Amino acid sequence: MAKRVRIGIVGVSGYGGSELLRLCFEHPGFEVVYASGESTVGQTLAQRFPALAGHATGKIVIESFVPEKLTGVDLLFASLPTGKSKEPLSRVPASTKIVDVGGDHRYVDGWVYGLTELPGNRERIAKTSRLANPGCYPAATLLALAPLVKGGLVEPEGIAVDAKSGVTGTGRGGASDFGYAETNEDLFAYGLSGHTHVSEIQRTLSDLAGSKATVAFTPHLVPMTRGILATCYARPRGSVDGAKLYAAAQAMYANEPFVKIVPTEKGRGPHTKWASGSNLVFLSYAVNPDAGLVVAVAAIDNLGKGAAGQAMQNANLMTGQDETAGLAGLPLWP
Amino acid sequence: MAKRVRIGIVGVSGYGGSELLRLCFEHPGFEVVYASGESTVGQTLAQRFPALAGHATGKIVIESFVPEKLTGVDLLFASLPTGKSKEPLSRVPASTKIVDVGGDHRYVDGWVYGLTELPGNRERIAKTSRLANPGCYPAATLLALAPLVKGGLVEPEGIAVDAKSGVTGTGRGGASDFGYAETNEDLFAYGLSGHTHVSEIQRTLSDLAGSKATVAFTPHLVPMTRGILATCYARPRGSVDGAKLYAAAQAMYANEPFVKIVPTEKGRGPHTKWASGSNLVFLSYAVNPDAGLVVAVAAIDNLGKGAAGQAMQNANLMTGQDETAGLAGLPLWP
Amino acid sequence: MAKRVRIGIVGVSGYGGSELLRLCFEHPGFEVVYASGESTVGQTLAQRFPALAGHATGKIVIESFVPEKLTGVDLLFASLPTGKSKEPLSRVPASTKIVDVGGDHRYVDGWVYGLTELPGNRERIAKTSRLANPGCYPAATLLALAPLVKGGLVEPEGIAVDAKSGVTGTGRGGASDFGYAETNEDLFAYGLSGHTHVSEIQRTLSDLAGSKATVAFTPHLVPMTRGILATCYARPRGSVDGAKLYAAAQAMYANEPFVKIVPTEKGRGPHTKWASGSNLVFLSYAVNPDAGLVVAVAAIDNLGKGAAGQAMQNANLMTGQDETAGLAGLPLWP
Amino acid sequence: MAKRVRIGIVGVSGYGGSELLRLCFEHPGFEVVYASGESTVGQTLAQRFPALAGHATGKIVIESFVPEKLTGVDLLFASLPTGKSKEPLSRVPASTKIVDVGGDHRYVDGWVYGLTELPGNRERIAKTSRLANPGCYPAATLLALAPLVKGGLVEPEGIAVDAKSGVTGTGRGGASDFGYAETNEDLFAYGLSGHTHVSEIQRTLSDLAGSKATVAFTPHLVPMTRGILATCYARPRGSVDGAKLYAAAQAMYANEPFVKIVPTEKGRGPHTKWASGSNLVFLSYAVNPDAGLVVAVAAIDNLGKGAAGQAMQNANLMTGQDETAGLAGLPLWP
Repeated sequence: MAKRVRIGIVGVSGYGGSELLRLCFEHPGFEVVYASGESTVGQTLAQRFPALAGHATGKIVIESFVPEKLTGVDLLFASLPTGKSKEPLSRVPASTKIVDVGGDHRYVDGWVYGLTELPGNRERIAKTSRLANPGCYPAATLLALAPLVKGGLVEPEGIAVDAKSGVTGTGRGGASDFGYAETNEDLFAYGLSGHTHVSEIQRTLSDLAGSKATVAFTPHLVPMTRGILATCYARPRGSVDGAKLYAAAQAMYANEPFVKIVPTEKGRGPHTKWASGSNLVFLSYAVNPDAGLVVAVAAIDNLGKGAAGQAMQNANLMTGQDETAGLAGLPLWP
Repeated sequence: MAKRVRIGIVGVSGYGGSELLRLCFEHPGFEVVYASGESTVGQTLAQRFPALAGHATGKIVIESFVPEKLTGVDLLFASLPTGKSKEPLSRVPASTKIVDVGGDHRYVDGWVYGLTELPGNRERIAKTSRLANPGCYPAATLLALAPLVKGGLVEPEGIAVDAKSGVTGTGRGGASDFGYAETNEDLFAYGLSGHTHVSEIQRTLSDLAGSKATVAFTPHLVPMTRGILATCYARPRGSVDGAKLYAAAQAMYANEPFVKIVPTEKGRGPHTKWASGSNLVFLSYAVNPDAGLVVAVAAIDNLGKGAAGQAMQNANLMTGQDETAGLAGLPLWP
Repeated sequence: MAKRVRIGIVGVSGYGGSELLRLCFEHPGFEVVYASGESTVGQTLAQRFPALAGHATGKIVIESFVPEKLTGVDLLFASLPTGKSKEPLSRVPASTKIVDVGGDHRYVDGWVYGLTELPGNRERIAKTSRLANPGCYPAATLLALAPLVKGGLVEPEGIAVDAKSGVTGTGRGGASDFGYAETNEDLFAYGLSGHTHVSEIQRTLSDLAGSKATVAFTPHLVPMTRGILATCYARPRGSVDGAKLYAAAQAMYANEPFVKIVPTEKGRGPHTKWASGSNLVFLSYAVNPDAGLVVAVAAIDNLGKGAAGQAMQNANLMTGQDETAGLAGLPLWP
Repeated sequence: MAKRVRIGIVGVSGYGGSELLRLCFEHPGFEVVYASGESTVGQTLAQRFPALAGHATGKIVIESFVPEKLTGVDLLFASLPTGKSKEPLSRVPASTKIVDVGGDHRYVDGWVYGLTELPGNRERIAKTSRLANPGCYPAATLLALAPLVKGGLVEPEGIAVDAKSGVTGTGRGGASDFGYAETNEDLFAYGLSGHTHVSEIQRTLSDLAGSKATVAFTPHLVPMTRGILATCYARPRGSVDGAKLYAAAQAMYANEPFVKIVPTEKGRGPHTKWASGSNLVFLSYAVNPDAGLVVAVAAIDNLGKGAAGQAMQNANLMTGQDETAGLAGLPLWP
């Protein structure tokens, strides 16, 4: 049996942090021993998460994050707003492994980019102690497009990615902008003048293509709590049909436990709810019959494969656990 | 003062039909005198719509639709499922004007296509007694793209239209497929193998462009009751910037009472909720900074500009009313 | 024709304020000439409400509220958080009539309590220039219970009122507590240790009963934007059946344009959505078959009969307009 | 290690059935070997639940239920609509244990009523092979009231139970009545002329009280997928304060793993979302300060403690598993 891994969670009162707590709780080899969260300092985890009342974990008191003083933590999950993790994480002892769920260390020297399913990543992840988790939008987009771009089935330039996210993608700090009354029965596009996730997407696709990739990325806010759907439109390179698209995806993801490649049924792609609470990604492909564009669709839970689930998968690799440990449960439906 | 127009509504128990009833009720020159609806035959309108209790309109008994027996009706709104209106409407007396909100008479000889804001349409609409209302998705898509395609600012081929709709777009008959538990917290793409609205979009865009237009149209079902957002991606023709896109839209829609052209604020496009319960369309434009694609966004209420509101606007023109009569109210927000 | 009434709205950027703006816009005799709102000072109404672009009203600039400088306003709607209106409204010129939608002037000397349908209120309202609009919960509760308490059909003591509200009832300032992610798929009771609206309910019921009335009032937050449902449980006084309950309600509300008394159909009471966007209240009554308690149910839109709609109705009376002016539209459904 | 228990699920395509499947999948000692479901006969479980693709369980073909032919099943979960399970379950071989999640065997001779936490029930459950799971409303109501009624702290007659449920409580067959468009932004009471769950509640409370208990039970449909909140109003017997109420609950549920007794914080009771996806029940108590009534509140997931979770807990007892096996995960939040 693998040795029990002592886990710390930074930012436990945010959406990503609380999902990490939930997943750790279900993990047979992980034990939460430390939690920090600025807005809830001094509360116990059981006060913040009433379901923990009566458990040992519930007695842990949420602290203010003081990196230097961290002791007895084997692996730290950091779930902080973008721009807030670079400085404090630099002060974490080297002996503590880090999975940064936030955006500050993607494509930063010394940090491994942790989209596990991309070629070569799994090996790099297993060896690192500093892991940058992918963004939620890039996770969905890249998983959908990687097989097509890598396989030369689509032009890597001029791809349109129309992405839709539930509101937890904005982080808990965004709640005041996204009250229930404003969000329910509403839908809008944002990032029309650019989005922070684009460079991560373009850089990774360029690596896969071996040439420059450009993406028109338009995120939308959807009235739901969890879920990202990425609908990607690319120009085919040469003669391409649906079968070729599926074959490329099946080849790349043949042994991936969290990737589910599903046929379009009655022309429908995957549902975000299929992934709710899980680390799964569902992928579908089609060639549009009218304009001939290739359409690739990915559905994930933004807090699962888009954040905490992916982080757990990486942490499993970094600590010698089974890659699916703590992540084998079925999604919650309906 | 204009003579009072006697109105009949076919399909009053559906979503489109009930919205027509609401708008007629608020119209100073329209009086509902007849209503049919298969699933509610024999009920009074007040039984079906409790808010009508005590009003004369509430006493009208919902009938089964027998076209030949229609008397005393100046204008008939027909809101029937696609495929169900062609035959019965052919039997309506010639003296009764018809606005068909359903899909059976779009681009059919003898019927005028009723997207009022497109060049030349207003005049044709005012003269006809047989009007085919546009589909909800085409209304949003065409209003966004018409100025760009007409003005030669984008290539008319290979346009990607990523459209998102609330569930009333599927019609009330679809309710059993779209129960609350299945729909809330869910999102998916459909029509990946083609959608009935595409030919209407491509045909109209081709007319505007003066050359063949092709569209990869992908509709999505969003967990909301009302609202359509169409996000359109097109390749620019020549050098195009945001100002040129806006100028083209402002030129085409300068005097249109229901078209609101809005700047992108902090990169955000229009919200569907801005249009809720109204006949308004909100349009925004951008050139994507990464891939250089033109992005055009339209937000409507699918039951407003996408169905009943547009139908009222057309009926006003067909009966000599003020074009905005009954449609001047503000959207319901929040 | 009645003289045009010049309207000011204080707190226009809140939920109640924006609903007042919408209703004024649809009112044939009211013209908005002034608007204030702390969080949006300096914006035009069209910037805050994009649907107003192109209208004269849209050009009005939202100001900071300086009561002394108010000129050219015949009637002022004040929609400020509880505790925030008493002081500034005391400085409004006496020549400007006031309808205070907030909670600071209910049962205050010199202010008339404005639940129009209660006995004697209509006459008092028509004569006053200082009107305290009822709270949203009291409006629903009192309209349901008034006929029973007044008619001696139930014991006025020990009534349980289980009330449920959409989130706009908390005001826009509460949005940060009630983010979409926290609120969707959630439900909870609050006010278990008391609620500010109770004294208003108990005082009014005591007046109607002619003896002390006590109420266990428990509000709940429901994942919806608009709507209040009040389910009231009272002990019958003497022999009471459903027919007697309905007869009492019909007698009290016989000529009320906004009260709809509806039978329970298949045991179902009124739906909150029946009232959405309107000033209507729907009432149903039953005697519970098991425990013998009387059950009275009221459904309103908390921003309609619970706030802005009721305020308009009162303003109509105070300015000699038709009582239903601007309020005759049907609710938005679905 | 306990022997692996072979599980069959009848009604797997309904809401309760799919939740049972999810819980079995997470259970270390249970293995699903059989599934039936009328509307999905012939599909594999992986077609119905795409997340199961690639798992052995996903290859199981959904059958039509033929009780006599059931072999190799140690325990059968039956999740059929009320009125549909009595006859077929009578034909299940005696060697197969049954947990009937439906309503047909509650308080039927030869069947044990399975609300585990009530006095004496745990022992009875462990010995039976025929178990009637409680209804979702009764589970919430009884857990809230049992300590008060048993302890003589409230009058057992004239209790008002105001219960609110998400739409999965109506079963999947109800979806056509509860489409998204009808249900979102809506709320209503039903069962005003009686509800099928009342006798189960009254009978159990009478047993606890040792005298007749009567309940005015009013269920409401809330726009959410999962969750039940029961708010119960009872008259105190003698001098009662909050501390006494809490003490009674803590005494009865001292060792219960799924019962969480929580203080009212700022007057707020428990949230239904705290229980989402789990078998937990959250309880709060208060004495209303105005009318002096006792208020007891319970929050559960209607598919958890209200159906599949409770069924798993019972099945664990019936098969000698740890009572919490498969049920230890944290709720999904947000």
